[in-house]
Amino acid sequence: MNNATMQNKVHEFPKVLLRGVGQVMFQDDARTGLLFMIGIFWGAYEEGNGIVAWGALVGIIASTITGYILALPDDKGAQGLWGFNGVLVGCAFPTFLGNTPLMWMVLILCSAMSTWVRAGFNKTLQPLKINSLTFPFVFTTWIFLLSAREFSALAPVHLNVPEISIQINSDVNHGVANLVAYWLKGISQVFLINSAASGALFLIGLAVSSHRAAIWGAVGSAVALIVAIAYKASGADISTGMYGFSAVLTGIALGQAYSAPGWRTSIWTLVGIVVTVFAQAAMNALFAPFGLATLTAPFCVVTWIFLIGRLRKRKTAK
Amino acid sequence: MNNATMQNKVHEFPKVLLRGVGQVMFQDDARTGLLFMIGIFWGAYEEGNGIVAWGALVGIIASTITGYILALPDDKGAQGLWGFNGVLVGCAFPTFLGNTPLMWMVLILCSAMSTWVRAGFNKTLQPLKINSLTFPFVFTTWIFLLSAREFSALAPVHLNVPEISIQINSDVNHGVANLVAYWLKGISQVFLINSAASGALFLIGLAVSSHRAAIWGAVGSAVALIVAIAYKASGADISTGMYGFSAVLTGIALGQAYSAPGWRTSIWTLVGIVVTVFAQAAMNALFAPFGLATLTAPFCVVTWIFLIGRLRKRKTAK
Amino acid sequence: MNNATMQNKVHEFPKVLLRGVGQVMFQDDARTGLLFMIGIFWGAYEEGNGIVAWGALVGIIASTITGYILALPDDKGAQGLWGFNGVLVGCAFPTFLGNTPLMWMVLILCSAMSTWVRAGFNKTLQPLKINSLTFPFVFTTWIFLLSAREFSALAPVHLNVPEISIQINSDVNHGVANLVAYWLKGISQVFLINSAASGALFLIGLAVSSHRAAIWGAVGSAVALIVAIAYKASGADISTGMYGFSAVLTGIALGQAYSAPGWRTSIWTLVGIVVTVFAQAAMNALFAPFGLATLTAPFCVVTWIFLIGRLRKRKTAK
Repeated sequence: MNNATMQNKVHEFPKVLLRGVGQVMFQDDARTGLLFMIGIFWGAYEEGNGIVAWGALVGIIASTITGYILALPDDKGAQGLWGFNGVLVGCAFPTFLGNTPLMWMVLILCSAMSTWVRAGFNKTLQPLKINSLTFPFVFTTWIFLLSAREFSALAPVHLNVPEISIQINSDVNHGVANLVAYWLKGISQVFLINSAASGALFLIGLAVSSHRAAIWGAVGSAVALIVAIAYKASGADISTGMYGFSAVLTGIALGQAYSAPGWRTSIWTLVGIVVTVFAQAAMNALFAPFGLATLTAPFCVVTWIFLIGRLRKRKTAK
Repeated sequence: MNNATMQNKVHEFPKVLLRGVGQVMFQDDARTGLLFMIGIFWGAYEEGNGIVAWGALVGIIASTITGYILALPDDKGAQGLWGFNGVLVGCAFPTFLGNTPLMWMVLILCSAMSTWVRAGFNKTLQPLKINSLTFPFVFTTWIFLLSAREFSALAPVHLNVPEISIQINSDVNHGVANLVAYWLKGISQVFLINSAASGALFLIGLAVSSHRAAIWGAVGSAVALIVAIAYKASGADISTGMYGFSAVLTGIALGQAYSAPGWRTSIWTLVGIVVTVFAQAAMNALFAPFGLATLTAPFCVVTWIFLIGRLRKRKTAK
Repeated sequence: MNNATMQNKVHEFPKVLLRGVGQVMFQDDARTGLLFMIGIFWGAYEEGNGIVAWGALVGIIASTITGYILALPDDKGAQGLWGFNGVLVGCAFPTFLGNTPLMWMVLILCSAMSTWVRAGFNKTLQPLKINSLTFPFVFTTWIFLLSAREFSALAPVHLNVPEISIQINSDVNHGVANLVAYWLKGISQVFLINSAASGALFLIGLAVSSHRAAIWGAVGSAVALIVAIAYKASGADISTGMYGFSAVLTGIALGQAYSAPGWRTSIWTLVGIVVTVFAQAAMNALFAPFGLATLTAPFCVVTWIFLIGRLRKRKTAK
């Protein structure tokens, strides 16, 4: 590599990081990434848990640098595709685990690992013409969150207590102002943030890159809210946006990132969002005995199924 | 589509539905499907739970119509391959969930979804030269049954209570007349029906289409009964045919649907049936903490393994 | 097959068996297999549980003969690739289940099955250029161990009691002599043996075939010990080598069996070993509610991930 290329890479680096943040919601746009990052810092400090934002920063840097070290194809890196799993790893670790040096060591290891796990998963899924979405983040993070149950120096302080019988309290405050907050929190939870303001910032960030993405993100969270209320989910889960984040991602993936606009796409995406809400509930129940978080797995599974079994165009009769 | 084609399709439709019911046990034969449907109605009303049969009817219609709407390849549809997962979804929902309008809405959604999930799973498994069997039914139904633990408006009233330590009472009435009933119930449970009369009707339905299929179905249930008694399974499970249904399907799949007759096939099929019984017990234990039903997953997993690792023809010495 | 070929096969048979034992740690060497077998007998009798060694012998014979019966490609058989899963099945059954005739019947069935399950899994993984490692053993053994919870004639007498909340006591005796014993037991546990002497014999067996294999086996167990102590794992698990065996196998697989020597390989292998320790802890936690043993699954999963997402050679600038 000559000097000019090297200098160029150094100048590009902050943009590559921000594009990585934007790619969490499929946007190859540094401005989107910047607004997302502001939203993460805002929400993390609003919740009084600022290290979540610093974790995000460390995660995006560790995973992106790993792409350079492993000399993965440069064009993917430039689009931010090395970093979007890492930034989520960085949000998840301080959200669920205690803030200790040993936690930060595995945060860095796991973020870095998400980059090559993505390369491997994509190679695996390539014959099906789908990619691994955020599943590298989900899979690698599950390993470390579960391991925290067996390592007393890595305490799972903010994970749910493992339980067998699930108790649901479906009371939820249906006031309109509250519903707006729940809807925005459904969007902010994509980055594991519980803040209506962050959700609004994320929506603006989406709109900067793509109006369609912003609309489908908004629709995803709204439809999730309606289904979760209609089927009487836990009020605590509804009011903290826990039914929204996977549905938001399914909405953007099926409605914008992987398809052309049209009424067929719209119907298909709406069905996908509804199924995601049931998949979210299913995985909540499945993970209860382990006290493990589903992360964005419901989104990955449902989006894969809807992409593989994609709606065909009806043959015209002419 | 011109008028004549349309009329033709309308006339064909009931046959397509019945073939779909027959395909649950691999028979592309409307007469078989009719006998199966009679067996389902008989057994459901005998158990005092007639809505199971109406669920089956709704499920077969919703999944088959979905095939037309998505314009999937017509030849598959004509063979009933769009509907066999849907009819099982339709049996399962009213078996395990409370009878409410919200249950019927997801029954229809899940039946419809089973059609495109099948298309996607088949595409995934195609390089291995196997197909998805009844796994689209299993997978989509698991999502909704599990979600019922988190949605108080979709109560899992007839699912097992989640439990950690399994208590087995292996007392079972070994009288010959009882054994015949258990054996027939093993067959009727393919459609989640607990009725010896229905089991006999299903056997007759099989024989109408293929004597070999009927024989292997009968052998599957009988061998399962012997193994479950020898290894001292729960008496309640034995007497309600819970060890039979997956073994019946493995028997027909390995013994008739996917292989030519011969003594090699027969030995291979018998081993597959025996392994299915252990896989059934294993999945019962694995699902106990979730209070989830295995559905026909043990059949799918074992049949896949036996088809992929298929017995080779010994090279002859000449 | 003519007479001379037959005679040749009979003479080769004991060597094929021993190579099968050696292949558990990737060594196509009958001398290695012999030393492993001696280590198994030594350790089993030292623990007062000699039937584990006899199980190993039955398992290797049943699985290897199955390869001949199914007429699988001879060259694989000659390298011992039919038997290495079977010998592990043979160690696992008497380790976890009660010593009854019905146990021995499924031990033979499961060993035999591991041979064709391996053929099927390898076919499945072939597009990714990886093989099934010891996963055929893991998968088939899980079926029977789990089934033991539902069959009172196949009691899981030595499996953990299923539990929801995990209690860790991280006290462990850090005396140097003890650490050496823990380190060697980490190696012996590859064959489910808890004996420092057996671990030493296994190391010698590795060195006879490949110094690099012996070094990476030793490093794997040592690094696992360091990580498990640093993150405060359960003292009982550390002192019986439960964090070592998967790491040993990952070390040999990534460091010797599937890569050329070099500093890149060394770093990659060390990272793989560290991740394996977390995967071991994660699967311990995941399996606690079932009281199921992870067997060598952590090794399989991590090694697959590291082989698929393999470190690329950096393009040189010239």
